[in-house]
Amino acid sequence: MGKHSTNMRVKLPIFCLLLEAITILLFAIFVRYNDETDASEWHDRMKKHNESNADNDFYFRYASFQDVHTMIFIGFGFLMTFLKCYGFSSVAFNFLIAAFGLQWSTLIQGFFHGFHDGKIHIGIESMINADFCTGAVLISFGAVLGKTSPVQLIVMTLFEVTLFGINEFIILSILGAKDAGGSMTIHTFGAYFGLVVSRVLYRPQLEKSRAREGSIYHSDLFAMIGTIYLWMFWPSFNSAVTAHGDDQHRTVLNTYYSLAACTLATFALSSMLNGEGKLDMVHIQNAALAGGVAVGTSAEMMLTPFGAMIAGCLAGIISVLGYKFLTPVLDSKLKIQDTCGVHNLHGMPGILGALIGVIVAAAATADIYGLGMEDVFPLIYDGTRTSKSQAVYQLLALLVALAFALIGGIIVDNYISVLNVGKDNALNDVIFMRKN
Amino acid sequence: MGKHSTNMRVKLPIFCLLLEAITILLFAIFVRYNDETDASEWHDRMKKHNESNADNDFYFRYASFQDVHTMIFIGFGFLMTFLKCYGFSSVAFNFLIAAFGLQWSTLIQGFFHGFHDGKIHIGIESMINADFCTGAVLISFGAVLGKTSPVQLIVMTLFEVTLFGINEFIILSILGAKDAGGSMTIHTFGAYFGLVVSRVLYRPQLEKSRAREGSIYHSDLFAMIGTIYLWMFWPSFNSAVTAHGDDQHRTVLNTYYSLAACTLATFALSSMLNGEGKLDMVHIQNAALAGGVAVGTSAEMMLTPFGAMIAGCLAGIISVLGYKFLTPVLDSKLKIQDTCGVHNLHGMPGILGALIGVIVAAAATADIYGLGMEDVFPLIYDGTRTSKSQAVYQLLALLVALAFALIGGIIVDNYISVLNVGKDNALNDVIFMRKN
Amino acid sequence: MGKHSTNMRVKLPIFCLLLEAITILLFAIFVRYNDETDASEWHDRMKKHNESNADNDFYFRYASFQDVHTMIFIGFGFLMTFLKCYGFSSVAFNFLIAAFGLQWSTLIQGFFHGFHDGKIHIGIESMINADFCTGAVLISFGAVLGKTSPVQLIVMTLFEVTLFGINEFIILSILGAKDAGGSMTIHTFGAYFGLVVSRVLYRPQLEKSRAREGSIYHSDLFAMIGTIYLWMFWPSFNSAVTAHGDDQHRTVLNTYYSLAACTLATFALSSMLNGEGKLDMVHIQNAALAGGVAVGTSAEMMLTPFGAMIAGCLAGIISVLGYKFLTPVLDSKLKIQDTCGVHNLHGMPGILGALIGVIVAAAATADIYGLGMEDVFPLIYDGTRTSKSQAVYQLLALLVALAFALIGGIIVDNYISVLNVGKDNALNDVIFMRKN
Repeated sequence: MGKHSTNMRVKLPIFCLLLEAITILLFAIFVRYNDETDASEWHDRMKKHNESNADNDFYFRYASFQDVHTMIFIGFGFLMTFLKCYGFSSVAFNFLIAAFGLQWSTLIQGFFHGFHDGKIHIGIESMINADFCTGAVLISFGAVLGKTSPVQLIVMTLFEVTLFGINEFIILSILGAKDAGGSMTIHTFGAYFGLVVSRVLYRPQLEKSRAREGSIYHSDLFAMIGTIYLWMFWPSFNSAVTAHGDDQHRTVLNTYYSLAACTLATFALSSMLNGEGKLDMVHIQNAALAGGVAVGTSAEMMLTPFGAMIAGCLAGIISVLGYKFLTPVLDSKLKIQDTCGVHNLHGMPGILGALIGVIVAAAATADIYGLGMEDVFPLIYDGTRTSKSQAVYQLLALLVALAFALIGGIIVDNYISVLNVGKDNALNDVIFMRKN
Repeated sequence: MGKHSTNMRVKLPIFCLLLEAITILLFAIFVRYNDETDASEWHDRMKKHNESNADNDFYFRYASFQDVHTMIFIGFGFLMTFLKCYGFSSVAFNFLIAAFGLQWSTLIQGFFHGFHDGKIHIGIESMINADFCTGAVLISFGAVLGKTSPVQLIVMTLFEVTLFGINEFIILSILGAKDAGGSMTIHTFGAYFGLVVSRVLYRPQLEKSRAREGSIYHSDLFAMIGTIYLWMFWPSFNSAVTAHGDDQHRTVLNTYYSLAACTLATFALSSMLNGEGKLDMVHIQNAALAGGVAVGTSAEMMLTPFGAMIAGCLAGIISVLGYKFLTPVLDSKLKIQDTCGVHNLHGMPGILGALIGVIVAAAATADIYGLGMEDVFPLIYDGTRTSKSQAVYQLLALLVALAFALIGGIIVDNYISVLNVGKDNALNDVIFMRKN
Repeated sequence: MGKHSTNMRVKLPIFCLLLEAITILLFAIFVRYNDETDASEWHDRMKKHNESNADNDFYFRYASFQDVHTMIFIGFGFLMTFLKCYGFSSVAFNFLIAAFGLQWSTLIQGFFHGFHDGKIHIGIESMINADFCTGAVLISFGAVLGKTSPVQLIVMTLFEVTLFGINEFIILSILGAKDAGGSMTIHTFGAYFGLVVSRVLYRPQLEKSRAREGSIYHSDLFAMIGTIYLWMFWPSFNSAVTAHGDDQHRTVLNTYYSLAACTLATFALSSMLNGEGKLDMVHIQNAALAGGVAVGTSAEMMLTPFGAMIAGCLAGIISVLGYKFLTPVLDSKLKIQDTCGVHNLHGMPGILGALIGVIVAAAATADIYGLGMEDVFPLIYDGTRTSKSQAVYQLLALLVALAFALIGGIIVDNYISVLNVGKDNALNDVIFMRKN
């Protein structure tokens, strides 16, 4: 029995079953239904307040949740199937990581939010947040795709989810920054964390498998399924945890127009930069989505529709330029093999999104927001902060996200690099078997 | 003109058109819009009760309906595309059966529910129930995949839908058992019905086409589309007809965590049981879904999140073990060729789900459920039953579902086996033509 | 540098960037958030009217919107991937056209609806309407598939969206016709517009690429993804802009049963008309959807469930007959190469749908509709029109839609035919590059 089979046949089952057992134990000790989910509590509350519509909130959140869920499992899962010999790994590991990540993040995020009486109280909002956290891990997965074993991916998930929870708590609760669509907490953090981890996994022998790092005709169509689901449901992603009413409505609208504008910019740049005027499927699959990332912080704010479109255009342009000029440099100079180009889709557009958030926050006035200021910028509304100081905190939040990604990534590297990886695991679905 | 072409060119059109004509005639005689769907009735009611939110119920149900609809047509349809030469048949017959099944079950279920003044009154709930019933037929289709002509499938649908309606009426209305997600009425019934039908279709010459009973690379990716949609939307499936509020909220949450835990158990068992530690795509495609089946009866109850996760783990383990050890035995000893392994995904997990329902019902106390008891266990709430007697009825319901499946399957066998099937129909898309 | 590369490398980027810049400028000048989307306005209104549920409308519309969005991007996009060498073009150009079309139609439709104080006020309803308008353009795209460059498609979109806005305004606002699901405004207009444009693009040398106008095994499965999403979500399409309550409920139900009946008719006709009794994948992919088109005008009305099923059956039969007998004639006699058969899926069923609308409107009585008449036929309700005169206006609306399609198509032809197209662009993904 070779090292490879040991890793898969012994380590993977032990890791999965042990972690699942620990998770179940922690759930048994700490996790309880929240008041909306508990049969007794909910009916008591209904009776006390005579609330006949108490469940509307659940339904509106659940609709958003299912859209986000689709992005996590179909969107991310299929976006990465473009590699011709790595489709099973892309979809299946995406599935495994997400299934573990959402359980683990329920615990981690639960200690920061909704922890009282010594228990974590869960409901639809914790499910959305668990999916969000999982999204960050899947972005990192895109950077290391083809260079890790499933055991390493689970270890990465374990650490990254934990760091995500701390990072998000600092940004949202301590700094009081706004980041409903996660330009900073999800995209910037997930991308740079993954890129740092990718660096430690750089191995010369991987070059041999470069021939496999290509697509075949149908694998690119599968990837387009991922792209289009991400594109369509991004308005739900950015608005899933914003306040009901105008906030959610506006977030949806801004994201929709940002993505539409981004798509035209992507097609334009892609054919412009190609010697023969050809459209690059990699750009269409990825850069057209950067518009969603770029308004992740600001879509909730009074960005205006044309402001959203400008943000989308910039994101598309930056993203295509990144694929064309920056990715090859990262690989050759910095030894960072960014398999899916997450730096171009999530990294740079995430930073752009954070900076747009800084600008739009700085421009907030009582005249523009009216009573709506309370939902968007509660600390400006109650007089704790001025618009300018809110902008400073937004900028600080970006720096925190970057710091967590870089330092966290380096810490995780140590744990990941000691784990054994089957040599032929690179960009190859050899660890899967099929009926034949 | 051979027997095969006669079957397809003459029998199929006649069957389809005749059944459709009869169905339309029965709709014209019996089916009417219900009060929420009828222009005049709805407005009269709105006026009388001054109900401005009378339509909320429709929207919440419709959102669940579309998720269930996606599971039926995309989920089941693509899950079965893993066979390399049978993708068209899988998707297209799934489509045909479902389109007929939902019309027929509107009639059958309508005679048991919502029949008054000599008419069947339909609306969004009857649409959900029609999709549910169709789900049972599609599970049976998974067991007989590749061994039937479309005419046989339509005959099977006609009978199975009818039996489903009677079985469901006995379990829910006469026995007063709870089974919102259909562990018994849909999964157990559908699976064992299909397995019995599969037995009569066993033919030695089918062995010759065994070479075709395999997958190719991309067919397994198409199947993963089916898997992931079923996995994502299972919370909507289990909660589609539960009471609004905490019930639906809790059902969603329990199903979500059960599936997540099931996925880790599936990956662990799959690599553990493979000699080389490889992950089997068949397990990932199917066993990871067993967690949804296993909480079909109990997700509505106060199962607790960690209880749901234990249920999910057990289901994943049982399902992979079934694929590994039981399916070959069913084939060689009992002559049951379970093409899609529905016994492992729906049969055993369905029974497990029913038994978990028995246990959780037996543990119900007024303290745990409070006023919420009325929605979950109305007969315990109003004092008609104790928790223990409710548990006994739950067990009885399982036996009824199994009895209907086995006896019903044997009856249907007689009708199906006399119908002619083209020899080369087995696991081959020969009856489809394409543009080329 | 050949003509082809110039077209792609210079013209496409300039067109995209210039149009996007003009669009953003027009948005900056004219487009504002509406009262539900604006932070200040919404909260003022909430305060004034003490509306705690003011946002319900948004959520119900947004759920419909996401279903329609899925039909536009996944449904139409993948339905056209059946061609073996044109999958990238189908999905990617669908994506490009839709992304531009929805921005442009926000402007055009905004001048006709919601224009006050010199500004266009947008929100969720304008987003749905923008997607609807885009649907018409994508139907036309189906007729010209494989015969145009992306630059020509953008020009076509620019004109068609503009004509769509005028046509829709005349039909709905001036004639007071009802057409919630767009049998006339979307399907009839889009199909005949596309067919006229297709005629001017007829070129003898295209015949050479006929060999490429076929499918391969997996391209037909991708197309089935498109088909099934369109089929499933058509009830949402037809009901997206109808009144809440019984209207929306009834529209959903009628569309659901129409499609189910249509599917059985399609399978029956397909095998009946084939010499060997085979089922044609083209029929299943397309004709089974005609039931949604055929009730686009009337689903909102008191069509009755069996009336909807008869409409669906007729549509399926007409559509299969069209594919079998009419499409070859259009090609050989009229030089109209209808690549996707939009005449059979949208053209004829659209006219059928308009005519069913005429009949059902003529049969409207106060007894059947009660107070619900106000929502369905406001002009009959307030005494302005009789049922018979409403029916006459419905018929007039069909003629207007046909006239706009034919005359508009001819006008657009002049602009499109002068634009350069790469010769080898026909049914070939040569203008795309992939990672390999």
